[in-house]
Amino acid sequence: MDSTTNEGASSSSSSSYTHSWTYDVFLSFRGEDTRYNFVGHLYNNLVQKGFKTFIDDEALKRGEEISSALLKAIEQSRISVVVFSENYASSRWCLDELVHIFHCKEQLQQMVFPVFYKVDPSDVRNQRKSFGKALVDHESKLKDNMDKVLRWRETLTKAANLSGWSFLADGHEYKFIQKIVEDISVQVLDSTYLDVAKYPVGIDFEQPETPISWKTCLQKMFEIAFCMSSSSY
Amino acid sequence: MDSTTNEGASSSSSSSYTHSWTYDVFLSFRGEDTRYNFVGHLYNNLVQKGFKTFIDDEALKRGEEISSALLKAIEQSRISVVVFSENYASSRWCLDELVHIFHCKEQLQQMVFPVFYKVDPSDVRNQRKSFGKALVDHESKLKDNMDKVLRWRETLTKAANLSGWSFLADGHEYKFIQKIVEDISVQVLDSTYLDVAKYPVGIDFEQPETPISWKTCLQKMFEIAFCMSSSSY
Repeated sequence: MDSTTNEGASSSSSSSYTHSWTYDVFLSFRGEDTRYNFVGHLYNNLVQKGFKTFIDDEALKRGEEISSALLKAIEQSRISVVVFSENYASSRWCLDELVHIFHCKEQLQQMVFPVFYKVDPSDVRNQRKSFGKALVDHESKLKDNMDKVLRWRETLTKAANLSGWSFLADGHEYKFIQKIVEDISVQVLDSTYLDVAKYPVGIDFEQPETPISWKTCLQKMFEIAFCMSSSSY
Repeated sequence: MDSTTNEGASSSSSSSYTHSWTYDVFLSFRGEDTRYNFVGHLYNNLVQKGFKTFIDDEALKRGEEISSALLKAIEQSRISVVVFSENYASSRWCLDELVHIFHCKEQLQQMVFPVFYKVDPSDVRNQRKSFGKALVDHESKLKDNMDKVLRWRETLTKAANLSGWSFLADGHEYKFIQKIVEDISVQVLDSTYLDVAKYPVGIDFEQPETPISWKTCLQKMFEIAFCMSSSSY
Protein backbone atom coordinates (compact mmCIF):
# COMPACT_ATOMS: atom_id res chain seq x y z
CA MET A 1 0.00 0.00 0.00
CA ASP A 2 1.48 3.30 -1.04
CA SER A 3 1.20 5.81 1.75
CA THR A 4 2.27 9.44 1.90
CA THR A 5 2.62 11.11 5.24
CA ASN A 6 2.33 14.87 5.62
CA GLU A 7 2.32 15.41 9.30
CA GLY A 8 1.34 18.82 10.47
CA ALA A 9 -0.30 19.72 7.20
CA SER A 10 -3.31 20.82 9.20
CA SER A 11 -2.82 23.26 12.02
CA SER A 12 -5.92 22.02 13.81
CA SER A 13 -5.32 18.30 13.53
CA SER A 14 -2.69 16.03 14.94
CA SER A 15 -3.48 13.23 12.50
CA SER A 16 -1.31 12.37 9.54
CA TYR A 17 -2.34 12.39 5.91
CA THR A 18 -2.33 9.15 4.06
CA HIS A 19 -3.45 7.85 0.69
CA SER A 20 -4.83 4.67 2.17
CA TRP A 21 -8.41 5.88 1.86
CA THR A 22 -10.71 4.54 4.53
CA TYR A 23 -13.82 6.05 2.96
CA ASP A 24 -14.91 6.51 -0.61
CA VAL A 25 -17.09 9.53 0.15
CA PHE A 26 -17.19 12.14 2.91
CA LEU A 27 -20.42 14.09 3.17
CA SER A 28 -20.24 17.71 4.28
CA PHE A 29 -23.62 19.29 5.00
CA ARG A 30 -25.64 21.41 7.40
CA GLY A 31 -27.44 19.00 9.69
CA GLU A 32 -30.46 21.12 10.50
CA ASP A 33 -31.18 21.67 6.79
CA THR A 34 -30.68 18.24 5.27
CA ARG A 35 -29.62 15.51 7.73
CA TYR A 36 -33.02 13.83 8.04
CA ASN A 37 -34.16 14.21 4.45
CA PHE A 38 -31.96 14.96 1.40
CA VAL A 39 -28.55 14.02 2.82
CA GLY A 40 -30.02 10.94 4.53
CA HIS A 41 -31.33 9.72 1.18
CA LEU A 42 -28.04 10.56 -0.56
CA TYR A 43 -26.11 8.63 2.12
CA ASN A 44 -28.44 5.65 1.80
CA ASN A 45 -28.11 5.58 -2.01
CA LEU A 46 -24.31 5.80 -1.83
CA VAL A 47 -24.15 2.97 0.69
CA GLN A 48 -26.55 0.84 -1.37
CA LYS A 49 -24.28 1.36 -4.37
CA GLY A 50 -21.40 0.00 -2.33
CA PHE A 51 -19.58 3.21 -1.39
CA LYS A 52 -18.06 3.44 2.06
CA THR A 53 -19.53 6.75 3.07
CA PHE A 54 -18.75 8.90 6.09
CA ILE A 55 -21.62 10.86 7.55
CA ASP A 56 -20.94 12.75 10.75
CA ASP A 57 -22.73 12.45 14.02
CA GLU A 58 -24.19 15.66 15.48
CA ALA A 59 -21.95 15.09 18.51
CA LEU A 60 -18.84 15.72 16.39
CA LYS A 61 -19.86 19.32 15.85
CA ARG A 62 -19.89 20.56 19.42
CA GLY A 63 -17.41 22.77 21.21
CA GLU A 64 -15.26 25.53 19.84
CA GLU A 65 -13.24 23.60 17.31
CA ILE A 66 -14.13 21.02 14.70
CA SER A 67 -13.26 17.61 16.17
CA SER A 68 -10.08 15.76 15.21
CA ALA A 69 -12.22 12.70 14.38
CA LEU A 70 -14.01 14.71 11.72
CA LEU A 71 -10.77 16.14 10.31
CA LYS A 72 -9.30 12.63 10.13
CA ALA A 73 -12.38 11.31 8.34
CA ILE A 74 -12.01 14.05 5.72
CA GLU A 75 -8.35 13.15 5.21
CA GLN A 76 -9.22 9.49 4.80
CA SER A 77 -11.87 10.10 2.13
CA ARG A 78 -11.23 9.75 -1.57
CA ILE A 79 -14.08 12.13 -2.43
CA SER A 80 -15.78 14.92 -0.54
CA VAL A 81 -19.32 15.87 -1.50
CA VAL A 82 -20.28 19.27 -0.08
CA VAL A 83 -24.02 19.88 0.13
CA PHE A 84 -24.62 23.64 0.19
CA SER A 85 -28.03 24.44 1.62
CA GLU A 86 -29.71 27.57 2.99
CA ASN A 87 -27.94 27.62 6.36
CA TYR A 88 -24.64 25.95 5.48
CA ALA A 89 -22.56 29.10 5.93
CA SER A 90 -24.05 30.06 9.27
CA SER A 91 -22.23 27.09 10.82
CA ARG A 92 -18.56 27.77 11.53
CA TRP A 93 -18.04 23.98 11.81
CA CYS A 94 -19.26 23.55 8.24
CA LEU A 95 -16.95 26.35 7.09
CA ASP A 96 -13.94 24.91 8.93
CA GLU A 97 -14.79 21.52 7.45
CA LEU A 98 -14.87 23.08 3.99
CA VAL A 99 -11.45 24.71 4.47
CA HIS A 100 -10.01 21.36 5.53
CA ILE A 101 -11.61 19.63 2.56
CA PHE A 102 -9.89 22.09 0.23
CA HIS A 103 -6.63 21.54 2.06
CA CYS A 104 -7.00 17.81 1.33
CA LYS A 105 -7.94 18.55 -2.26
CA GLU A 106 -4.70 20.46 -2.72
CA GLN A 107 -2.44 18.18 -0.69
CA LEU A 108 -3.91 14.74 -1.38
CA GLN A 109 -5.68 15.22 -4.70
CA GLN A 110 -8.95 14.47 -2.95
CA MET A 111 -11.86 14.95 -5.32
CA VAL A 112 -14.38 17.60 -4.27
CA PHE A 113 -17.87 17.98 -5.70
CA PRO A 114 -20.38 20.60 -4.62
CA VAL A 115 -24.14 20.00 -4.49
CA PHE A 116 -26.26 23.16 -4.53
CA TYR A 117 -29.41 22.09 -2.77
CA LYS A 118 -32.08 24.77 -3.25
CA VAL A 119 -29.43 27.49 -3.32
CA ASP A 120 -28.02 29.36 -6.28
CA PRO A 121 -24.32 28.59 -6.96
CA SER A 122 -23.73 32.30 -7.62
CA ASP A 123 -25.00 33.13 -4.11
CA VAL A 124 -22.44 30.72 -2.69
CA ARG A 125 -19.71 32.01 -5.02
CA ASN A 126 -20.33 35.67 -4.19
CA GLN A 127 -21.70 35.16 -0.67
CA ARG A 128 -25.08 36.69 -1.23
CA LYS A 129 -28.48 36.12 0.41
CA SER A 130 -28.23 33.62 3.32
CA PHE A 131 -24.53 33.10 2.55
CA GLY A 132 -23.86 36.84 2.56
CA LYS A 133 -25.76 37.37 5.80
CA ALA A 134 -23.99 34.47 7.51
CA LEU A 135 -20.54 35.77 6.61
CA VAL A 136 -21.38 39.28 7.80
CA ASP A 137 -22.55 37.75 11.10
CA HIS A 138 -19.29 35.84 11.42
CA GLU A 139 -17.30 39.01 10.73
CA SER A 140 -19.12 40.86 13.49
CA LYS A 141 -18.32 38.09 15.98
CA LEU A 142 -14.74 37.41 14.90
CA LYS A 143 -13.31 40.91 14.68
CA ASP A 144 -9.97 39.68 16.01
CA ASN A 145 -9.77 36.87 13.49
CA MET A 146 -10.76 38.37 10.17
CA ASP A 147 -8.22 36.18 8.39
CA LYS A 148 -10.34 33.16 9.28
CA VAL A 149 -13.47 34.71 7.81
CA LEU A 150 -11.55 35.77 4.71
CA ARG A 151 -10.40 32.16 4.28
CA TRP A 152 -14.00 30.97 4.58
CA ARG A 153 -15.05 33.46 1.90
CA GLU A 154 -12.26 32.42 -0.46
CA THR A 155 -13.03 28.74 0.05
CA LEU A 156 -16.76 29.21 -0.61
CA THR A 157 -15.85 30.96 -3.86
CA LYS A 158 -13.47 28.16 -4.85
CA ALA A 159 -16.08 25.50 -4.02
CA ALA A 160 -18.79 27.20 -6.04
CA ASN A 161 -16.47 27.30 -9.05
CA LEU A 162 -16.12 23.52 -9.12
CA SER A 163 -18.23 21.23 -11.25
CA GLY A 164 -21.12 19.76 -9.30
CA TRP A 165 -24.87 19.37 -9.23
CA SER A 166 -27.61 21.91 -8.71
CA PHE A 167 -31.12 21.16 -7.45
CA LEU A 168 -33.72 23.90 -7.45
CA ALA A 169 -36.77 22.00 -6.14
CA ASP A 170 -38.29 21.67 -9.60
CA GLY A 171 -37.67 17.97 -10.09
CA HIS A 172 -37.59 14.62 -8.35
CA GLU A 173 -35.05 14.46 -5.54
CA TYR A 174 -34.59 10.72 -6.00
CA LYS A 175 -33.64 11.14 -9.67
CA PHE A 176 -31.23 13.94 -8.74
CA ILE A 177 -29.60 11.65 -6.16
CA GLN A 178 -29.40 8.80 -8.68
CA LYS A 179 -27.54 11.14 -11.05
CA ILE A 180 -25.06 12.14 -8.33
CA VAL A 181 -24.38 8.51 -7.43
CA GLU A 182 -23.95 7.51 -11.08
CA ASP A 183 -21.53 10.39 -11.72
CA ILE A 184 -19.55 9.53 -8.59
CA SER A 185 -19.35 5.90 -9.73
CA VAL A 186 -17.80 7.04 -13.00
CA GLN A 187 -15.36 9.35 -11.21
CA VAL A 188 -14.31 6.62 -8.79
CA LEU A 189 -13.80 4.09 -11.56
CA ASP A 190 -11.73 6.61 -13.52
CA SER A 191 -9.65 7.56 -10.50
CA THR A 192 -9.18 3.92 -9.52
CA TYR A 193 -7.76 3.30 -12.97
CA LEU A 194 -5.38 6.25 -12.50
CA ASP A 195 -4.43 5.07 -9.02
CA VAL A 196 -3.64 1.61 -10.28
CA ALA A 197 -1.17 3.17 -12.69
CA LYS A 198 0.23 5.44 -10.00
CA TYR A 199 0.32 2.98 -7.11
CA PRO A 200 0.63 -0.44 -8.68
CA VAL A 201 1.01 -2.35 -5.41
CA GLY A 202 -1.51 -3.08 -2.70
CA ILE A 203 -4.49 -1.02 -3.78
CA ASP A 204 -7.13 -1.73 -1.18
CA PHE A 205 -9.93 0.30 -2.64
CA GLU A 206 -13.00 -1.87 -3.03
CA GLN A 207 -15.00 -1.60 -6.19
CA PRO A 208 -18.65 -1.02 -5.48
CA GLU A 209 -20.47 -4.29 -6.02
CA THR A 210 -23.26 -4.38 -8.54
CA PRO A 211 -26.12 -6.36 -7.02
CA ILE A 212 -27.86 -8.93 -9.17
CA SER A 213 -31.06 -10.82 -8.55
CA TRP A 214 -31.24 -14.36 -7.21
CA LYS A 215 -33.05 -15.27 -10.42
CA THR A 216 -30.05 -14.19 -12.53
CA CYS A 217 -27.66 -15.92 -10.16
CA LEU A 218 -29.61 -19.19 -10.29
CA GLN A 219 -29.78 -18.92 -14.08
CA LYS A 220 -25.98 -18.58 -14.25
CA MET A 221 -25.53 -21.51 -11.87
CA PHE A 222 -27.78 -23.72 -13.98
CA GLU A 223 -25.88 -22.70 -17.12
CA ILE A 224 -22.62 -23.76 -15.49
CA ALA A 225 -24.14 -26.95 -14.09
CA PHE A 226 -25.53 -27.77 -17.55
CA CYS A 227 -22.18 -27.13 -19.25
CA MET A 228 -20.33 -29.26 -16.71
CA SER A 229 -22.79 -32.14 -16.84
CA SER A 230 -22.73 -32.03 -20.67
CA SER A 231 -18.95 -32.13 -20.76
CA SER A 232 -18.72 -35.05 -18.30
CA TYR A 233 -20.72 -37.40 -20.57
CA MET B 1 -56.36 -16.73 -12.89
CA ASP B 2 -59.36 -16.25 -10.70
CA SER B 3 -61.18 -13.11 -11.63
CA THR B 4 -64.22 -11.50 -10.05
CA THR B 5 -66.18 -8.94 -12.03
CA ASN B 6 -68.27 -6.30 -10.27
CA GLU B 7 -69.36 -4.01 -13.03
CA GLY B 8 -70.88 -0.74 -11.99
CA ALA B 9 -69.45 -0.94 -8.52
CA SER B 10 -68.10 2.58 -9.05
CA SER B 11 -70.54 5.24 -10.17
CA SER B 12 -67.77 7.39 -11.65
CA SER B 13 -65.90 4.67 -13.51
CA SER B 14 -66.88 2.42 -16.36
CA SER B 15 -64.08 -0.03 -15.62
CA SER B 16 -64.71 -3.45 -14.12
CA TYR B 17 -63.18 -4.82 -10.96
CA THR B 18 -60.86 -7.76 -11.24
CA HIS B 19 -58.50 -9.64 -8.99
CA SER B 20 -55.83 -9.86 -11.66
CA TRP B 21 -53.76 -7.15 -10.02
CA THR B 22 -51.72 -5.07 -12.42
CA TYR B 23 -49.89 -3.20 -9.68
CA ASP B 24 -48.60 -4.22 -6.31
CA VAL B 25 -48.87 -0.75 -4.84
CA PHE B 26 -50.92 2.36 -5.63
CA LEU B 27 -49.62 5.59 -4.10
CA SER B 28 -52.17 8.19 -3.07
CA PHE B 29 -50.65 11.53 -2.07
CA ARG B 30 -50.86 15.30 -2.42
CA GLY B 31 -48.49 16.22 -5.23
CA GLU B 32 -47.60 19.71 -4.09
CA ASP B 33 -46.59 18.42 -0.64
CA THR B 34 -44.60 15.29 -1.37
CA ARG B 35 -44.30 14.41 -5.08
CA TYR B 36 -40.73 15.61 -5.54
CA ASN B 37 -39.33 14.56 -2.20
CA PHE B 38 -40.86 12.02 0.23
CA VAL B 39 -43.21 10.20 -2.15
CA GLY B 40 -40.59 10.22 -4.92
CA HIS B 41 -38.16 8.44 -2.60
CA LEU B 42 -40.85 6.02 -1.42
CA TYR B 43 -41.74 5.21 -5.03
CA ASN B 44 -38.08 4.66 -5.91
CA ASN B 45 -37.52 2.36 -2.93
CA LEU B 46 -40.61 0.30 -3.75
CA VAL B 47 -39.57 -0.07 -7.37
CA GLN B 48 -36.02 -1.02 -6.38
CA LYS B 49 -37.47 -3.69 -4.10
CA GLY B 50 -39.31 -5.13 -7.10
CA PHE B 51 -42.83 -3.81 -6.50
CA LYS B 52 -44.87 -2.70 -9.49
CA THR B 53 -45.91 0.69 -8.21
CA PHE B 54 -48.41 3.13 -9.66
CA ILE B 55 -47.64 6.81 -9.16
CA ASP B 56 -49.98 9.25 -10.84
CA ASP B 57 -49.10 11.96 -13.29
CA GLU B 58 -50.18 15.51 -12.41
CA ALA B 59 -52.20 15.50 -15.63
CA LEU B 60 -54.55 12.84 -14.23
CA LYS B 61 -55.85 15.26 -11.61
CA ARG B 62 -57.30 17.98 -13.82
CA GLY B 63 -60.90 18.74 -14.58
CA GLU B 64 -63.95 18.33 -12.39
CA GLU B 65 -63.82 14.59 -11.83
CA ILE B 66 -61.05 12.19 -10.97
CA SER B 67 -59.97 10.48 -14.20
CA SER B 68 -61.11 6.97 -15.09
CA ALA B 69 -57.45 6.01 -15.65
CA LEU B 70 -56.73 6.79 -12.02
CA LEU B 71 -59.80 4.90 -10.78
CA LYS B 72 -58.81 1.90 -12.85
CA ALA B 73 -55.27 1.98 -11.49
CA ILE B 74 -56.66 1.92 -7.94
CA GLU B 75 -58.85 -1.07 -8.79
CA GLN B 76 -55.89 -2.91 -10.26
CA SER B 77 -53.66 -2.44 -7.22
CA ARG B 78 -53.20 -5.06 -4.54
CA ILE B 79 -52.23 -2.43 -1.95
CA SER B 80 -52.96 1.27 -1.60
CA VAL B 81 -50.60 3.41 0.44
CA VAL B 82 -52.18 6.73 1.33
CA VAL B 83 -49.71 9.46 2.29
CA PHE B 84 -51.50 12.04 4.42
CA SER B 85 -49.64 15.33 4.41
CA GLU B 86 -50.50 18.92 5.37
CA ASN B 87 -52.59 19.73 2.29
CA TYR B 88 -53.96 16.30 1.40
CA ALA B 89 -57.56 17.14 2.32
CA SER B 90 -57.67 20.43 0.45
CA SER B 91 -57.61 18.45 -2.81
CA ARG B 92 -61.00 17.05 -3.79
CA TRP B 93 -59.20 14.67 -6.20
CA CYS B 94 -57.27 13.20 -3.28
CA LEU B 95 -60.48 12.80 -1.29
CA ASP B 96 -62.33 11.19 -4.20
CA GLU B 97 -59.33 8.90 -4.68
CA LEU B 98 -59.50 7.95 -1.01
CA VAL B 99 -63.20 7.13 -1.21
CA HIS B 100 -62.54 4.89 -4.21
CA ILE B 101 -59.65 3.22 -2.41
CA PHE B 102 -61.98 2.33 0.45
CA HIS B 103 -64.55 1.09 -2.00
CA CYS B 104 -61.88 -1.28 -3.38
CA LYS B 105 -60.86 -2.25 0.13
CA GLU B 106 -64.41 -3.33 0.88
CA GLN B 107 -65.23 -4.90 -2.49
CA LEU B 108 -61.89 -6.40 -3.50
CA GLN B 109 -60.13 -6.89 -0.19
CA GLN B 110 -57.51 -4.43 -1.32
CA MET B 111 -55.05 -3.69 1.48
CA VAL B 112 -54.89 -0.06 2.59
CA PHE B 113 -52.12 1.47 4.69
CA PRO B 114 -51.97 5.10 5.77
CA VAL B 115 -48.74 7.07 6.12
CA PHE B 116 -48.98 10.15 8.33
CA TYR B 117 -46.26 12.40 6.98
CA LYS B 118 -45.70 15.28 9.37
CA VAL B 119 -49.37 15.25 10.36
CA ASP B 120 -50.97 13.85 13.49
CA PRO B 121 -53.24 10.82 12.86
CA SER B 122 -55.79 12.29 15.29
CA ASP B 123 -56.02 15.46 13.17
CA VAL B 124 -56.84 13.29 10.17
CA ARG B 125 -59.24 11.13 12.19
CA ASN B 126 -61.14 14.09 13.66
CA GLN B 127 -60.50 16.53 10.79
CA ARG B 128 -58.68 19.16 12.79
CA LYS B 129 -56.04 21.75 11.86
CA SER B 130 -55.34 21.73 8.10
CA PHE B 131 -57.73 18.79 7.65
CA GLY B 132 -60.51 20.59 9.53
CA LYS B 133 -60.01 23.81 7.61
CA ALA B 134 -59.99 21.99 4.26
CA LEU B 135 -63.25 20.18 4.98
CA VAL B 136 -64.97 23.40 6.12
CA ASP B 137 -63.82 25.03 2.86
CA HIS B 138 -65.24 22.14 0.86
CA GLU B 139 -68.54 22.41 2.75
CA SER B 140 -68.84 26.08 1.92
CA LYS B 141 -68.29 25.35 -1.78
CA LEU B 142 -70.45 22.23 -2.01
CA LYS B 143 -73.61 23.30 -0.21
CA ASP B 144 -75.74 21.31 -2.68
CA ASN B 145 -73.69 18.18 -2.22
CA MET B 146 -73.12 17.81 1.50
CA ASP B 147 -73.41 14.02 1.23
CA LYS B 148 -70.16 14.03 -0.72
CA VAL B 149 -68.35 16.01 1.97
CA LEU B 150 -69.81 13.77 4.67
CA ARG B 151 -68.46 10.73 2.80
CA TRP B 152 -65.03 12.38 2.66
CA ARG B 153 -65.15 12.99 6.40
CA GLU B 154 -66.20 9.41 7.17
CA THR B 155 -63.50 8.01 4.90
CA LEU B 156 -60.77 10.16 6.47
CA THR B 157 -61.84 8.84 9.88
CA LYS B 158 -61.80 5.25 8.64
CA ALA B 159 -58.38 5.71 7.06
CA ALA B 160 -56.88 7.22 10.20
CA ASN B 161 -58.11 4.25 12.21
CA LEU B 162 -56.10 1.79 10.12
CA SER B 163 -52.65 0.56 11.05
CA GLY B 164 -49.93 2.48 9.26
CA TRP B 165 -46.81 4.53 9.78
CA SER B 166 -46.31 7.95 11.30
CA PHE B 167 -43.40 10.31 10.61
CA LEU B 168 -43.03 13.46 12.64
CA ALA B 169 -39.78 14.88 11.20
CA ASP B 170 -37.72 13.67 14.14
CA GLY B 171 -35.88 10.87 12.37
CA HIS B 172 -34.29 9.83 9.11
CA GLU B 173 -36.72 9.77 6.22
CA TYR B 174 -34.75 7.06 4.44
CA LYS B 175 -34.99 4.74 7.46
CA PHE B 176 -38.71 5.44 7.74
CA ILE B 177 -39.14 4.53 4.07
CA GLN B 178 -37.08 1.37 4.49
CA LYS B 179 -39.42 0.34 7.31
CA ILE B 180 -42.49 0.93 5.14
CA VAL B 181 -41.05 -1.12 2.29
CA GLU B 182 -40.02 -3.95 4.63
CA ASP B 183 -43.49 -4.05 6.21
CA ILE B 184 -45.15 -4.04 2.80
CA SER B 185 -42.91 -6.91 1.71
CA VAL B 186 -44.12 -8.93 4.69
CA GLN B 187 -47.76 -8.05 4.00
CA VAL B 188 -47.44 -8.98 0.34
CA LEU B 189 -45.76 -12.27 1.13
CA ASP B 190 -48.48 -13.08 3.67
CA SER B 191 -51.29 -12.15 1.31
CA THR B 192 -49.67 -14.02 -1.57
CA TYR B 193 -49.65 -17.11 0.62
CA LEU B 194 -53.34 -16.58 1.39
CA ASP B 195 -54.10 -15.93 -2.27
CA VAL B 196 -52.36 -19.10 -3.30
CA ALA B 197 -54.71 -21.00 -0.99
CA LYS B 198 -57.71 -19.03 -2.21
CA TYR B 199 -56.90 -18.88 -5.92
CA PRO B 200 -54.70 -21.88 -6.63
CA VAL B 201 -54.45 -21.39 -10.39
CA GLY B 202 -52.56 -18.80 -12.40
CA ILE B 203 -51.32 -16.42 -9.77
CA ASP B 204 -49.27 -13.89 -11.71
CA PHE B 205 -48.03 -11.83 -8.85
CA GLU B 206 -44.25 -11.52 -8.95
CA GLN B 207 -42.33 -11.90 -5.73
CA PRO B 208 -39.95 -9.03 -5.14
CA GLU B 209 -36.43 -10.22 -5.88
CA THR B 210 -33.76 -9.94 -3.23
CA PRO B 211 -30.59 -8.69 -4.91
CA ILE B 212 -27.30 -10.35 -4.06
CA SER B 213 -23.78 -9.29 -4.95
CA TRP B 214 -21.82 -10.68 -7.86
CA LYS B 215 -19.25 -11.83 -5.30
CA THR B 216 -21.83 -14.01 -3.52
CA CYS B 217 -23.13 -15.30 -6.84
CA LEU B 218 -19.64 -16.23 -8.05
CA GLN B 219 -18.95 -17.93 -4.73
CA LYS B 220 -22.11 -20.04 -5.12
CA MET B 221 -21.19 -20.91 -8.71
CA PHE B 222 -17.71 -22.04 -7.68
CA GLU B 223 -19.19 -24.13 -4.89
CA ILE B 224 -21.46 -25.87 -7.39
CA ALA B 225 -18.68 -26.25 -9.93
CA PHE B 226 -16.43 -27.74 -7.25
CA CYS B 227 -19.12 -30.19 -6.08
CA MET B 228 -19.84 -31.28 -9.64
CA SER B 229 -16.19 -31.70 -10.59
CA SER B 230 -15.57 -33.66 -7.34
CA SER B 231 -18.48 -35.96 -7.99
CA SER B 232 -17.48 -36.65 -11.61
CA TYR B 233 -14.11 -38.12 -10.59
